[in-house]
Amino acid sequence: MQASPSPLLTDLYQLTMLRGYYRLGLHRRETCFDLFFRRQPFGGGYAVAAGLEDALSFVEQLCFAEEDLAYLATLDLFDDDFLRHLRDFRFAGDVWAVGEGEFVFPQEPLLRVHAALEEAQLIETALLNIVNFQTLIATKAARVCREAGRDNVIEFGLRRAQGPDGGMSASRAAFIGGCAATSNVEAGRCWDIPVRGTHAHSWVLAFPDELAAFRAFAEVYPKNCTLLVDTFDTLRSGVPNAIRVGLEMKKRGERLAAIRLDSGDSAHLAREARRLLDKAGLTGVRILCSGDLDEYAIRELKRRGAPIDLFGVGTRLVTAHDDPALSGVYKLAAMRDAAGEWSATMKLSDEDAKSTLPGVKQVWRRFDEAGMMAGDTIELDAGDDSSGHFTSRISHSAFPLLQAAMKDGRATAPWPPLADLRARLKRNFEGLPESVARLHEPATYDVALGPRLREEIERLRKTDR
Amino acid sequence: MQASPSPLLTDLYQLTMLRGYYRLGLHRRETCFDLFFRRQPFGGGYAVAAGLEDALSFVEQLCFAEEDLAYLATLDLFDDDFLRHLRDFRFAGDVWAVGEGEFVFPQEPLLRVHAALEEAQLIETALLNIVNFQTLIATKAARVCREAGRDNVIEFGLRRAQGPDGGMSASRAAFIGGCAATSNVEAGRCWDIPVRGTHAHSWVLAFPDELAAFRAFAEVYPKNCTLLVDTFDTLRSGVPNAIRVGLEMKKRGERLAAIRLDSGDSAHLAREARRLLDKAGLTGVRILCSGDLDEYAIRELKRRGAPIDLFGVGTRLVTAHDDPALSGVYKLAAMRDAAGEWSATMKLSDEDAKSTLPGVKQVWRRFDEAGMMAGDTIELDAGDDSSGHFTSRISHSAFPLLQAAMKDGRATAPWPPLADLRARLKRNFEGLPESVARLHEPATYDVALGPRLREEIERLRKTDR
Repeated sequence: MQASPSPLLTDLYQLTMLRGYYRLGLHRRETCFDLFFRRQPFGGGYAVAAGLEDALSFVEQLCFAEEDLAYLATLDLFDDDFLRHLRDFRFAGDVWAVGEGEFVFPQEPLLRVHAALEEAQLIETALLNIVNFQTLIATKAARVCREAGRDNVIEFGLRRAQGPDGGMSASRAAFIGGCAATSNVEAGRCWDIPVRGTHAHSWVLAFPDELAAFRAFAEVYPKNCTLLVDTFDTLRSGVPNAIRVGLEMKKRGERLAAIRLDSGDSAHLAREARRLLDKAGLTGVRILCSGDLDEYAIRELKRRGAPIDLFGVGTRLVTAHDDPALSGVYKLAAMRDAAGEWSATMKLSDEDAKSTLPGVKQVWRRFDEAGMMAGDTIELDAGDDSSGHFTSRISHSAFPLLQAAMKDGRATAPWPPLADLRARLKRNFEGLPESVARLHEPATYDVALGPRLREEIERLRKTDR
Repeated sequence: MQASPSPLLTDLYQLTMLRGYYRLGLHRRETCFDLFFRRQPFGGGYAVAAGLEDALSFVEQLCFAEEDLAYLATLDLFDDDFLRHLRDFRFAGDVWAVGEGEFVFPQEPLLRVHAALEEAQLIETALLNIVNFQTLIATKAARVCREAGRDNVIEFGLRRAQGPDGGMSASRAAFIGGCAATSNVEAGRCWDIPVRGTHAHSWVLAFPDELAAFRAFAEVYPKNCTLLVDTFDTLRSGVPNAIRVGLEMKKRGERLAAIRLDSGDSAHLAREARRLLDKAGLTGVRILCSGDLDEYAIRELKRRGAPIDLFGVGTRLVTAHDDPALSGVYKLAAMRDAAGEWSATMKLSDEDAKSTLPGVKQVWRRFDEAGMMAGDTIELDAGDDSSGHFTSRISHSAFPLLQAAMKDGRATAPWPPLADLRARLKRNFEGLPESVARLHEPATYDVALGPRLREEIERLRKTDR
């Protein structure tokens, strides 16, 4: 299901600019581009970086096939000389990146691309597409899972996701963000994510009555039996029938695993269902709730004391329903001039919010004595250092977020299993101040500009570059 | 770039139910499922059907490869007998569908699937995923294009779309919805959509100054020169430099095609830019505006008299920003019982809004004498008629929306070119009442239930099925 990468998965202007740079002899100029976002999604205090592996795998494999070039030739924009040049195109640059599962904040580069102008430019659209979306969903999942409690969220979103790999990418990022499992079988196979599922209303409708449907399901899945109880009437029909089947299973030495609520006033229904289950002696049967859930709905259910054990979260998670696009951008930060000197560049724009930070930069994460995150500092990098050694000038307890991820067009190391990224985020949460993590009016995490970067900005503002 | 279909692009519960049906000998029971949505997106008065070709192409190609079965075997849910059964799985049913580019309304089946229970069930997730999203985006695009005016909208959304084929599917549906072109080159190739682009801020930053950058672009693209004027200061730098280059081009017998505004107060900037361009004699240079546009922003720009000729619409279109998921569902409507009799089924649920319409149904679109849409009627189909002949019992000026799209697992006809679907929608708009089409407080389009369907519902409510 992983889409094979096409070099044409790009905006036309990347290719028109490429031809321009090629014609003008600028295409091999060494550049540095930053990928960053400008506004925290969901009105939250933090975001979770994700999508790096998919983005860089795309970059690694990028090349033009004959049919790609044949299509471009039909557009009446590209001459043969340029199309021949594209035939040998490969990305051979370096990429520094924030690891998946790390917290990130506005203005901080998530990726820093060092490459010839044409190489760095062509990958813009795909990098943004992949990193924007997965970072958005990992962040949403982190918010949802924080409210639901550890290991209590199953991602159910494929049917409402934005296209097939809207669903695939969402399942991947949601797992990094903290979901325990997915309903998406292909995502389970691709990334070794646990898969879970119950049954649909159609199962119930396919039998003469609800009790027969529940009995049949228990017969087929004695070890994994979760019954959906809202097809007709949750409390008058669904729960009593589930209890009857649960007791029958008990007699056979089996166990009804859970019931699932999917409509109605879930807090009320969960309380009543719990009471009925307990009264029948089925105290071990869990309650799974689904239907239009997000972090706010889950918090409200918890506030109302709903005895819900598991949450199935779909649409509002996989589409990031209340803020469905991350405002990530990709901007030129520095370029070697004709004389071979690095020159920082900066977009000023009519809106301050759309300005960029110039130069080759690093992000330093600072910690306090208790090991809690104290703030980040974006500072010019100590030089054109691509060897991986940075000297912290900021604090002894700081570490550089941008790490070498790709060297000469190849990933520097095998990609870690998704479960490791998920575990990394879990550890990181221990160091995130509650004031920044909370849903309601989170504190703004401190992101400072280092002294050398501030100086450079002043210099460029004066020269109007 | 078209993802190869995987049969595992599904929710786990489809497969667990399939095994259940297989074990219980129900898997070959003939069924009828409906795909429909319950709520008009964007608070609007209409939706535009889209995604049919992609959905049914997926269904046509659906089969299990050995590696799919090997993965399923690891899940400890499926026995060897069932996995062997899946090896021969093909969808061999019939599908009736509303054509892409037709208006659709809540409760109306967009697809009606006639197939053996196991076949109809397994395709649910992919059908919903594809049809939900493309219908959503075609609808959004129709709303945007209606405000912007014919042929004035270019879709620019790939970088902010929800994953690679979130972008691809969005480009396809946006073109059906009325966009004139896309920036997405791969979408251009796949579906013959015109591709368009300008240049990025990085082009400007890659040159010693803005004027040099503009001159270089004009030199490389004398026939397709659109200049982005907001890198430093739109009115003090960008527009004057563009005018200078426009006049130089004029002297050479060339023509500056357009300038592009991408930040700031677009209405003000467009008016000033127009004034400056006209004063310089560059009356033919068009103004393209982009940046956080949607139907409401475009309407406001028009209200303020902004002289904008073209709109580049990205994020808010391709993610359907204000309502990013269509609430489409897929429900069992009828099933042959053990005696071979058709039996209508109906989900009642605790919420009326989540009930379903029973039986094998057709949707009739009624027109008034002026050829305007007067209302739809959902009615039980005149029988188990799969020959394509329906007798209208409702009106002489009515036509059946559901048409045979797939017979015995194969599409009934070649898929029409996308441009035909776009043209169909344009024609359909001529028959949509202004009261239903408008953005603000649209009238509710009349969707009636036919007498036989109402009777059937009453009957089922009494029997609690």
